[in-house]
Parts: sequence; structure tokens; C-alpha cells
Amino acid sequence: MPLDTFRENVIVLARDSTALRPARLAGVRKIEVRGGGRTLLASPMICDDPTVVGPGDAGLPLPAFRRLGVRPGDIVEVAPARAPRTLEALRAKILGETLSARDYADIAADLAAHRWSDMEIAAFLVACASFMSPEETLWLCQGMVAAGRRLTWDRPLVVDKHCIGGIPGNRTSLIVTPIVAAHGLLMPKTSSRAITSPAGTADTMEVLARVDLDEAEMGEVVGRCGGCIVWGGRVELSPADDVLISVERPLRIDTPEQMVASILSKKLAAGSTHLVLDIPVGPSAKVRDRRAGLRLKKLFEYVAGGLDLAIEVQFTDGRQPVGRGVGPVLEARDVMAVLSGDAGAPADLRDKAVFLAGRLLEQDPELRGGAGEQRARELLESGAARRKMDEIIVAQGPSPISGRLGALTAEVVAPRDGVVGAIDCLRIASVARLAGAPTDAGAGLDLMVRVGDKVRAGQPLYRIHGSEASEFAFASDAAGERSGVELAP
Amino acid sequence: MPLDTFRENVIVLARDSTALRPARLAGVRKIEVRGGGRTLLASPMICDDPTVVGPGDAGLPLPAFRRLGVRPGDIVEVAPARAPRTLEALRAKILGETLSARDYADIAADLAAHRWSDMEIAAFLVACASFMSPEETLWLCQGMVAAGRRLTWDRPLVVDKHCIGGIPGNRTSLIVTPIVAAHGLLMPKTSSRAITSPAGTADTMEVLARVDLDEAEMGEVVGRCGGCIVWGGRVELSPADDVLISVERPLRIDTPEQMVASILSKKLAAGSTHLVLDIPVGPSAKVRDRRAGLRLKKLFEYVAGGLDLAIEVQFTDGRQPVGRGVGPVLEARDVMAVLSGDAGAPADLRDKAVFLAGRLLEQDPELRGGAGEQRARELLESGAARRKMDEIIVAQGPSPISGRLGALTAEVVAPRDGVVGAIDCLRIASVARLAGAPTDAGAGLDLMVRVGDKVRAGQPLYRIHGSEASEFAFASDAAGERSGVELAP
Repeated sequence: MPLDTFRENVIVLARDSTALRPARLAGVRKIEVRGGGRTLLASPMICDDPTVVGPGDAGLPLPAFRRLGVRPGDIVEVAPARAPRTLEALRAKILGETLSARDYADIAADLAAHRWSDMEIAAFLVACASFMSPEETLWLCQGMVAAGRRLTWDRPLVVDKHCIGGIPGNRTSLIVTPIVAAHGLLMPKTSSRAITSPAGTADTMEVLARVDLDEAEMGEVVGRCGGCIVWGGRVELSPADDVLISVERPLRIDTPEQMVASILSKKLAAGSTHLVLDIPVGPSAKVRDRRAGLRLKKLFEYVAGGLDLAIEVQFTDGRQPVGRGVGPVLEARDVMAVLSGDAGAPADLRDKAVFLAGRLLEQDPELRGGAGEQRARELLESGAARRKMDEIIVAQGPSPISGRLGALTAEVVAPRDGVVGAIDCLRIASVARLAGAPTDAGAGLDLMVRVGDKVRAGQPLYRIHGSEASEFAFASDAAGERSGVELAP
Repeated sequence: MPLDTFRENVIVLARDSTALRPARLAGVRKIEVRGGGRTLLASPMICDDPTVVGPGDAGLPLPAFRRLGVRPGDIVEVAPARAPRTLEALRAKILGETLSARDYADIAADLAAHRWSDMEIAAFLVACASFMSPEETLWLCQGMVAAGRRLTWDRPLVVDKHCIGGIPGNRTSLIVTPIVAAHGLLMPKTSSRAITSPAGTADTMEVLARVDLDEAEMGEVVGRCGGCIVWGGRVELSPADDVLISVERPLRIDTPEQMVASILSKKLAAGSTHLVLDIPVGPSAKVRDRRAGLRLKKLFEYVAGGLDLAIEVQFTDGRQPVGRGVGPVLEARDVMAVLSGDAGAPADLRDKAVFLAGRLLEQDPELRGGAGEQRARELLESGAARRKMDEIIVAQGPSPISGRLGALTAEVVAPRDGVVGAIDCLRIASVARLAGAPTDAGAGLDLMVRVGDKVRAGQPLYRIHGSEASEFAFASDAAGERSGVELAP
């Protein structure tokens, strides 16, 4: 069938199908299609035109043919799919019960196999949001790791860093990875694309190099360079997590438990043994105050402990964006400026990256305790990190996208004399997205002030970049209404 | 498009559609289709065959054509549907907040208009299951009534009775309605088909008469007879409730709040002013003990009070099925036996119906206080109720289904001498459904013992009826494994 139904698989049957009578289908959630030695779950759809689908036919969209490995005319078996046994556990969770490790392992496996509907996933997430113990979070996380592939590296120490997100700019991974790899520690970094932000680490790296490497390609780059910065999507780590995220996102469910299970399952699946976790704290960050941060830290530590993953949680300054650029091209510019030791490179981005890289280098048993940050700074200042980044970029291959900055620009200026009192991360992210980031890599904004700066009326606060006139106008209007840079009274 | 997608509307667009580019569709939940002065929400689907759907075409299944009132070739407008504003309230509810009366009115309107996805409905139901105040339950109920049609009757007193369900047999409405109507009170009864039980009131009535009357036909029957027993589905009362139920059912969410809002919204929309509510209490009933029953009673009373609906809650014996037959044809047989005054008619069904009818008759200001039950018994014994039932049956029209009892039978016997200690309502319902009820109206089972009866080894406990060999075998096997009739030790 020449149909594309986006996320959902479908199977089209005739009203007078000899295989499955429509009367049997009305209450059926999914059809199990077996053929070519594989099994597929698909939602049923009835076709009333016998010239399209005859009584003995089943119509499948092209991707389903590929997944099953069958050809037009091949025989497939169809049967109503049984409701997964894990739905009993879902019902218990809705009633507020605590589930077992076995329940979570089974749930993660069914999620990864797309056996749960969006409705059931939503019910699960909301039930978990109202009550989920630390043990349950650990079990869910273990289940998610077990339900997917797991990368293995032939090294006792595999380091990683991760930020829980929410701070525009803040592209430290692109600096930390080459520093750490230049030192000789293994850092096979998988990263995500933006979901609700103006750029993910993968989006920014893509300005510099290809990021959609598969597992073999990634292995080759890491073997050659000791590190990489690739998009995790091709490697398919923790697929159950991707399924949960696809429902969390539209419902905007963002609980500590899901965050911990999601992040740690991805890290463990990527083969990490040591993780430095960056939790920015600030009034417009994901974590608003120290107390919430401490609760989250404890949960990360508890679950990582259960997974035998060494973790070090660092609270960082989340009161404003890090670096100047917001949006893939602008962020890549900042990163390369720091790596190149440019005099005008953003100091906050450099210092934060050096600090985090130092914490990772401390994991090296060969290094004197306390010398990590100093060593990180040397690797950056000597140009070793920059050379390592160039090596990684060449190994990953040329970027498929244009690195051009958006040609439309507008400056947002201070309405009066004053001192910058706060910069709203959410508003800055929102303006950059309205301008077109990350879909338009060259869109975004370039911050020209930081908290504490004195400004005069009319002085530029940031410059918006865009390529598409209507989007650009949207962003400028929004910034004009409320810039996100607030002057102290 | 010759497609039937069951519950969901779809719109099929070309990959190179001039109206909406697929790139704009990937994250879109629904498309708004405007034409013929009406609006429809549909899920997008892409067709890659330009001979089926061209760049300037939109394909719709037949029911969508009908709903919009357009013809092939007519111009329609399509646009990505905006996310409903009520999703903000949903997010607040997920975070455990209390919503306002206005929120619930808007939510019910959006539910009735199918603006929420199953995912969002599930999230709402689970969030409500973890916390929902009595006020919120009232507001949801008011919103559901306002979001649909409301029947009006030109009488100050419109009575109804309702059972919260869960007890096989128990077809008292079919006896109470003719008694009450014979007395002269107005009782326009709308009832439901079975969802998870072996028969709903509408299924059993359909053995005797047509039940899928529309509003005009129902009005005519009530005008002529003073009562009716029709299926509520054609009359479309409280459509938001139907939408909620379509998600509650697969998730088996059955909270007191949703039950109260559902039942009372239907009753108010049907134009009832006085309701007697039957809450059976028993170890395998929906309400397990008196304490849970009292909590539920208070909530019913609070919400009914806010709706200006007079309610009287009666706890009844829910320790075993009521009557002998379970399944449409067998239950209809019991009902007619009671109405006809047959000597062998099940006394428990008769006594319970007389009691409940008596409670409704007490609402008549003309009747001496306390005389209701006596009057109900007179109307039954005199044959007046039977004549009224015949009148209603004739007015509703002939049944479209066969009233034949399933010809395949098997008896389930006592494994040893003993006394019947308990009859498991859930198990009895399950065996009757396995035998084919209610889809096969003649399937079900006929109970031959009651709690307290002495039985001898080999004595029949019940007889299973069925028409289809494989279903019948399923039911017999299940009954053989565990009959549901438990002998006291």
C-alpha cells in the first residue's frame, strides 16, 4: 500500500477477508503479522475496494515489507495480537502499587517491541509520576538497558559526561570530549538531537562533521581517535527509553524518576563506566534550587550505584546561558573558538568545560589526585584538544549540512540604562527556536551581555539570526515583546 | 477512500500535497478539515500513489464525507489543528493540581468533540484516579452534561433506577420499569449494552423488542406508554462520557469518581429528576464491603445534590447472581416469568424488583408514605405490569434478533456433597462470556443453586448454553477448571 502512517504500523484487510473477519477486529488493538521469519504488530484498517485489497490479501505499507523481509505476493500469517501480560502490571501501577524488578524488565521489553499503545504508555507515565520508589526507578532503568543493544569497549575505563539540559549554549561536551580523548581516556560520546531546545549536542556537532554513524562506524572512529561525538539515534541504545520519550514529550511529563532512568539507561547501554553529571541550578533552569538539586542527585547516585556505574554529580551555575551563541552554527563557532584558544572565546564556556574535563581526568589512576583540571587546561592551551577535535571531525566524515549563519539579523537592545539582573533561559531558547533553530542550523541568537553587565539604553543585548523571513519576523516580534534579558530595577 | 479505520478519523494527503507539506505534518497530531460549513478532526496519513491522491486532493473515508456533508470533488480547507487549550489543564492535573469548574466544562467539550487523543485521555484518567476532589467530580459531571444533548419531559417527576453493575442476571430494570409506568409515573429508561459483562439491560431487552430507537421514536413510545427501555447509544447522551469510557475500558480504570460522573451525567442528560441507585455489596461485587459502599454513597449524594437530582442509594445483596439466567435470552426468560407471575419464577429477582419499584413509587406525592412496595407488588400480581411490558414491547417494535436459546448444553456438577458457600460473580460472568454472551444472545448459563443450598456429588450446579462449538468448548473447559460455585468446607 502506498501509505505512510508516521509512527504507527498498519495492516489493511478486506471487509470480507478470509483470514480475519472484521467482526473479530472491532475490539482488537493490534494484528500480529508473521512472515519471512519475523513478526510485526500493526493496527488494523479495513478496505472496502476489492480491487485494492481482496479477501485473501493483506496490504502493508512499504516500510513493513522491509521490516518483515517479504515481497509482494508472499504468504503472511495474521492473527489478533494478544494483550501483553504486562498490562496487568500497568493496572497494578495505576492502583498505586509497587511493581517488581521482573515487572519492569517485562515492561521495558514490551515497550521496546512496541507492544504498548500510546494510551497505555501515557497511563504508565502518569501513574509513575504520582508514585515511584527509588528501587522501581533502578529496576525500570535496568529493564531498559536489557531491552536494547549494549556497546562494549575493550577498556576498563570508559568515561562520559552528561548535562540534564535546559541551559541554552552550554556545549561543553564538544570541548570536554577532545580534551579527555587527547589525554588518552576513552570517551565514546553518543548525544541527542534537540527535542524542545534550540540545539542538541548532535545538532551542533553536525555543523562540523557527520553524526549519524552506525555502530560499526562509531567503533572505528573511537578505535582511531579514542573518542567521538555522534548522534545516538542510529546506534539504537535503550529503545524503550525512546518509546517513553515519544509520549513524555507531547504530555510534557518531566519527572526526576523518568529523567534518571532515561539518562542512565542510555549511558549504561553506551558502555560507560564513569559518568560526570552536570546539573545546572538556576531560576529558569530545570532544577530551580539547591534542595531540588540534592533530591535529584541522591536519586542519580542511588540508581547509578545499583547499575555499577560510577557517577559524580556536579551542580553548576544555571542562572543564564553558557557561551554566547544559541543555535547549532553559533554554538559550533563558540566551541571552535575555545578549542583554538581565540582571545575572544567565551570564558564561561571554556572554564566550565575545563572544570568538567578535569573531573573526568581525575578518574585516570595514573594522574596525581587533584591534577585533573590543570591537565585539562594544558591540553586545551597546548592545542592538543583542538588537534584531537580535528582528528575526530575527519574520522566522522564531512558534515552534510551548510554551516552558514542565517543572513537575516536583528539586534535586540536595552530599553534603558541599567545592570543585567537575569537572563531567562526559557525565553532565550524560545526566541532561538522561533528564529528557526535547530531545523535551520544557521538560525539562533548571539548573546552580547551577561548577568552583572552594565548596559546603556539602546545597547544591543543580543543579535537574532535567521534565514526565513516569516520565522525571523516571529522571533523578532517575540524578542521585542519580552527579550528574556532582564535589567535589575 | 474505501477505508474504515474504526474509531479514528483519517485524512489522506499526497506526499507532494500543495495544501500541507509532509514536513509540516510529522509532529502534527490532527488535521482540521473544514467543508460544507462543518469541521472535522482527522489523523494525517500520506499516500505515495499520485493516481490515488493527487497534490491538490484530500482523501476521506466515507463516514467523514457524511459527517462533513460534502461530495467528492467539493473543496475543503485543511490546516494542522491547534493543540486544544485544555491540555494546559491536563498538565496541571498531572502535577496533582485541583482544576476549576471552567476547566472541567472546557475539558468535557473538547472530549465530546474528539479533540483529545487517547494518550491524553489516559493521562487525564490516571491523574484523576490519583487525586480528584468531590467538587471536581461534580464539575466534570456538569461539564459532561453540558457538552451533549439533554432530553426534556413535560412532567415534574421523571424517575429512573440504575445499578452500578457487576452482578450477573440482576435484570430488575425490565421489571421495575413496567411496574412504575403501570402506576403512572414517567420512566424513560435508557440503558447500555454489555461492556465487560455477559449482558447489559439493552442486550436483554433486545431479545424482546427493538432497542435502538432515536430520540423522536423514544419520545413517541414514552408518550404512549409512560415508559420505555431503550439503548442509550442512539440518543447520544453525555458523549464526553462515551469518550472517557472508550479509554477506561481497555485500561480497566474503574474509580468511584469516574463511575459517579459517568452515571449521573447520563441520568441528568436523560431528563431524570429522581433516581434510585442500586449498589450491590459482596465479596466478588464491584463494592466489596459496607465501608467502601458508604464512601461511594456519599459521593453519589454529593454530586447528585449539586446537580439538583434527587437520589436514593440502596445497598443490596451482591453475594451471588440475581435470578437464574445469565446471558440475554436466559435473563429475558426470567424477567417474563416474574412479570407473568409464574410459580417457578426466581423469587430473588422478583423481590428485589418489587423493592426497588416500591422505592420509586414512594416518590409519588399521591401515594401514602410507606405504601410503595405494597403498591408495586399489587401491580405485579394483578398482571398490570405484564400488560404494560407488552405495551412497551409493541411500541418499541419487534426484536431484530433471534430469541433462541443456544442448543449446545453442558451441565457443571458438584464435585462432592456439601453446602453452597459462595458464588463468584466474576467467574460466572466470565464463563457466560466465554460461551458467547452477549454477542450470541442465546448463550450463557442457567444457575440451579443458590448460596446456602445443600448439594450432593454429581448434582448440577448450572447449565451452560452455547451455539458455536469452539466457544462452547472454551466455556465448558473454564467451568470445569473452576466453576465459580464454591462449596463450604
